[in-house]
Amino acid sequence: MTLNAATPALIDRIAAATADTRIDAPAPNYLEEPRGKWRGQAEAVLRPGTVADVAAILAICNEERVPVIPYGGGTGLVGGQIHEGPGAVILSLERMNRIRDIVPDDSTIVVEAGVTLLQVQEAAEKAGRLFPLSITSEGTARIGGVLGTNAGGSGVLRYGNARDLVLGIEAVLADGTVIRDLKRLRKDNTGYDLRHLLVGSEGTLGIITAASLRLLPRPAERGVAFLAVESPAAALDLLHRLQGELGEVVSAFELIHRQGLDFLAEHFSDLAHPLETRPDWMVLVEVGGQAGIAQALEDALATGFESGTITDAVLAQSDAQADALWTIRETIPEANRLTGSISSHDISVPLSRLPEFVERGREVVASVLPDARINCFGHVGDGNLHYNVFPAPGRDRAEYESAPVQRAVHDLAHDLGGSVSAEHGVGRLKAPDLDRYSDAGRLRAQRAIKAALDPNGILNPGAVVSGVPLG
Amino acid sequence: MTLNAATPALIDRIAAATADTRIDAPAPNYLEEPRGKWRGQAEAVLRPGTVADVAAILAICNEERVPVIPYGGGTGLVGGQIHEGPGAVILSLERMNRIRDIVPDDSTIVVEAGVTLLQVQEAAEKAGRLFPLSITSEGTARIGGVLGTNAGGSGVLRYGNARDLVLGIEAVLADGTVIRDLKRLRKDNTGYDLRHLLVGSEGTLGIITAASLRLLPRPAERGVAFLAVESPAAALDLLHRLQGELGEVVSAFELIHRQGLDFLAEHFSDLAHPLETRPDWMVLVEVGGQAGIAQALEDALATGFESGTITDAVLAQSDAQADALWTIRETIPEANRLTGSISSHDISVPLSRLPEFVERGREVVASVLPDARINCFGHVGDGNLHYNVFPAPGRDRAEYESAPVQRAVHDLAHDLGGSVSAEHGVGRLKAPDLDRYSDAGRLRAQRAIKAALDPNGILNPGAVVSGVPLG
Repeated sequence: MTLNAATPALIDRIAAATADTRIDAPAPNYLEEPRGKWRGQAEAVLRPGTVADVAAILAICNEERVPVIPYGGGTGLVGGQIHEGPGAVILSLERMNRIRDIVPDDSTIVVEAGVTLLQVQEAAEKAGRLFPLSITSEGTARIGGVLGTNAGGSGVLRYGNARDLVLGIEAVLADGTVIRDLKRLRKDNTGYDLRHLLVGSEGTLGIITAASLRLLPRPAERGVAFLAVESPAAALDLLHRLQGELGEVVSAFELIHRQGLDFLAEHFSDLAHPLETRPDWMVLVEVGGQAGIAQALEDALATGFESGTITDAVLAQSDAQADALWTIRETIPEANRLTGSISSHDISVPLSRLPEFVERGREVVASVLPDARINCFGHVGDGNLHYNVFPAPGRDRAEYESAPVQRAVHDLAHDLGGSVSAEHGVGRLKAPDLDRYSDAGRLRAQRAIKAALDPNGILNPGAVVSGVPLG
Repeated sequence: MTLNAATPALIDRIAAATADTRIDAPAPNYLEEPRGKWRGQAEAVLRPGTVADVAAILAICNEERVPVIPYGGGTGLVGGQIHEGPGAVILSLERMNRIRDIVPDDSTIVVEAGVTLLQVQEAAEKAGRLFPLSITSEGTARIGGVLGTNAGGSGVLRYGNARDLVLGIEAVLADGTVIRDLKRLRKDNTGYDLRHLLVGSEGTLGIITAASLRLLPRPAERGVAFLAVESPAAALDLLHRLQGELGEVVSAFELIHRQGLDFLAEHFSDLAHPLETRPDWMVLVEVGGQAGIAQALEDALATGFESGTITDAVLAQSDAQADALWTIRETIPEANRLTGSISSHDISVPLSRLPEFVERGREVVASVLPDARINCFGHVGDGNLHYNVFPAPGRDRAEYESAPVQRAVHDLAHDLGGSVSAEHGVGRLKAPDLDRYSDAGRLRAQRAIKAALDPNGILNPGAVVSGVPLG
C-alpha cells in the first residue's frame, strides 16, 4: 500500500466538492516549525470553514490516497505539523474558529478547532470561569492542535492535561466519517472512549474539528512566590509540604535552574533577576483559592525558611509582580531558542525518581558531550522536566552531534520508569523513540488501531507511527 | 464469522497450557447478577493467577473462537458479566489479587485486577493517602470490573470517574498479546491512549489484569450535612453557591427524594430519619479539606438557610454521625432492590437541564405507567440521577411492562443532551440503546476498533457492541 502525490486534478476535485474552503499555495509559515529543525513541503494549503468540507476533503484524499497534514497553530515542537516529502496537502483548521456555545452554569464551552487557547481562556474569564490549561504558546496554539497533542503546561499539577478537560469531540475520520459527540456531560459511559483515543493521536487517527471543554471555578485570589532551594529534592520536599498543608490549591510548581537565568541575562537583559542571591535551583509556585490564600502560602513557606529548605524568596505583593515572576519562567524557552540547543528533551519520571534523574543526567551528558551546558527546568510537580543541552560558551551547536546525547537522556528517563515525551507529543522527532522504548504489545495494538481507522495511512504519515512512503 | 462452544477438549488444552489456573464448573454466583434480571450459562470458570496464564487462555480461545466472559466482583448492574447462551467460558480475575506496589511519595499504587475497591481504599489510607473512588458495592467490586466499566460513584464531583484515576494498565488482547504499560506518570504523551480505550470497554477489547492508580492527599477533616431543599433547582443553586464560596472541596453532593426514605422506612425501619420534617427533596453534602472545613461548611450553609434555599438541616457533629448520614444514602439502592423496580435508569444530563429532566420525567412516566412510583436520587453534582420506577403499593412489578417506561425516560435524557448510561456502563442491557441513541459515526468507529482488536469477536460478545451468535 502506497500513497500518491496530490495533483492539480485532485485539487480541482476538492474545490468542486467543497462549499467554503480556501485553497492556496502554501505560505512559508506552514512549512516551518519553531525550532527550525525541519522544512516541510506541500502541494496546497486547504482551509475549510465547515465540518462538512473537512469530511469532503478527507473522503477525496482517502479515495486518492493522498497524504493530509493537519495544521493547528504551528507551535508544535516535535515536527508533527511538518511533512518533508512532496505530494501532501496541508489541512489547516484556522478558519473554523467559532466559540459555538458557553454555558457558565454547566461549566462548559464548545469551541471549534481553530480557536486559540488564549481565546478559550478569555471567553471563560468573561463568563466568570477558568479554563486552566496554560502553555507558553497559548496566544498562537489552536485547540485542535492542543487536543491533538494532549498539551500539558504549568496547570497540570492541579487541573490535568488537555485530555482531562475534554468532555466531548466532533471529529472526522480518514474516510470522511463524521463523529458528532459534543456532549457536555461529566459522566457518560455509552461505549468506547473515542475522545481519549483522538486526543493525543496528533491527527493520525482523525481530525478534531470541535470540542466541548470543562470550565472550572475561578479562584478569587492567587499567591505567587519565587524561591531559592538547595536542590530538586528540596523542591519536592517543599511541594509535598505545601500540598499537605494547603491541599489541592497548589496550581503550579515550576523548577528553574541558574542556567536559565544566565540565558535570560544574555538575551533579555531588561528582565530583572528577582532574588538577591543567584542560587543553582529555584521554584516558582502559585496557589489559587479563596481570599486569604496568598497569606496562607506565606505562612506555609515560613516553615520552609525555618527548616532551611528555602534559602531565599520573593512573594508577589501585587498581580503585576506575580505576572513579572511568571514572565521570567515563560521567557526561558525563548532564551533557549536564541541560545540554540544541541538537543531538547521533554521527559517525565515518577516524582520519587526525579532527583536521581537530575544527578545522573548531568553524568550521562558529561560522558558524551563533556563541555555542554544543561538547562533543566519545567513542571517539576508533574515529574516533567524540559532537559535541554547547549553548546559550551563560544561554540556552535553545529559542532556537536546531538544523537548520542538524546539517546543517553532518553535511555536514562526510560530506565527510571519515565517517558521520553511527557507533554510535547511524538510527532516525527520521536517516532523512532516509540519503536525503541514502547512495550511491544502496546505498539502492536497501536498499529492495529491505526490500520482500522486510517487503512490507507493518509493522516499525518510519519508522525507517531511509522509512515507509508509515497509510491 | 461465528463463535464455537467450549468443549472438554478445549478445557483440557487450556489446562495443559497454563501453570497456575483453576478450572471449575461454574458455581451459582458466577451466573447471577444483583438485580436478578438475567441468568447466565458457562462451560467452565477459569481463574488464572498470572498474566501469562490469562494470555495463554485468550490465545487458545481466540484460535478456537470460543466466547470469553470476563468476571470481576459480579456487581455490575447492566448484565455485562452475564452470557445467557451456551458455550462460553468465564474468566475470573479474582486470584490476581496482589497489591504489587505502593509509593506514597509518588501518590501511586499498582494493583492487580482482582483486588477489591475497598482493599485499594484501605491500602491508600494506610499509606496516608486517599483513593477517592467510592461506590456502594466497593467491598465486593474488583478493580478489573471497576475500570472495565469506568465506575463513577459519589466522589466524581471532585475527583473524577475511575478513568480519571488510572495512570497505566497491564492488559491482554484477544489474541493473547500482553500490553505492559504500568507507568506511574502524570504526563506521558508517547502514542495512542490505550488505557482510556480499555477503561470503559467492559472487557470487549481486552482484559485489564493490573493498573497503576493515582492516590490523592487525604483531607485532614470532613464536614457532612443532610439538608432539606425545595427542589432539584434549589439543590443546584446551593451546589453552585458552595463551590463558589468553598472551591473544589465539595467532594459529594447527593440528591435524595422522599420516596427513597419511604422505602428505607419500610425495609430498614431501624435507620432513623435524620430530619424533623419529611421533605420531598434532600441533599447529602460532604466537604473535605484542612482543619476548619466543617465549620466553613456550616458558615456557608447559613446563608442558604437565610435565603430559604435550605429548609431544614442536620450537620454531623462526629465521624460516627457523618457515617450514619452516609448509611442512609448508601442503603437506598438495597431498599430499591427489596421493593423491586419496574425499570431502573442511570442517566445524566447537563446540570442546567436537570430540573427540567426531573419535571418532565414525572410527566412521561405518568403518561405510560400512571400509578407507578419514582425514586429519583443520585449524584446530582455530576448531573447523574438514578431514576428508578416502581409499582404502586400493593402491586407487583410483573404486572407492568418495563419497555415503554425505559424508552420514555431514555428518550427524555437523550433529548436534553444527556446520556442513557452515566456510570453503570452499557453491558447487555443497554447495547440496543447504543444503537438507538449513538451518533452513526461514533458507532462506525467503535465497530472498526472492535474488529481490529478482537477480530473473532470472542471477548464478552453481546456486551456494548452487537454480538456474534454461536455457529
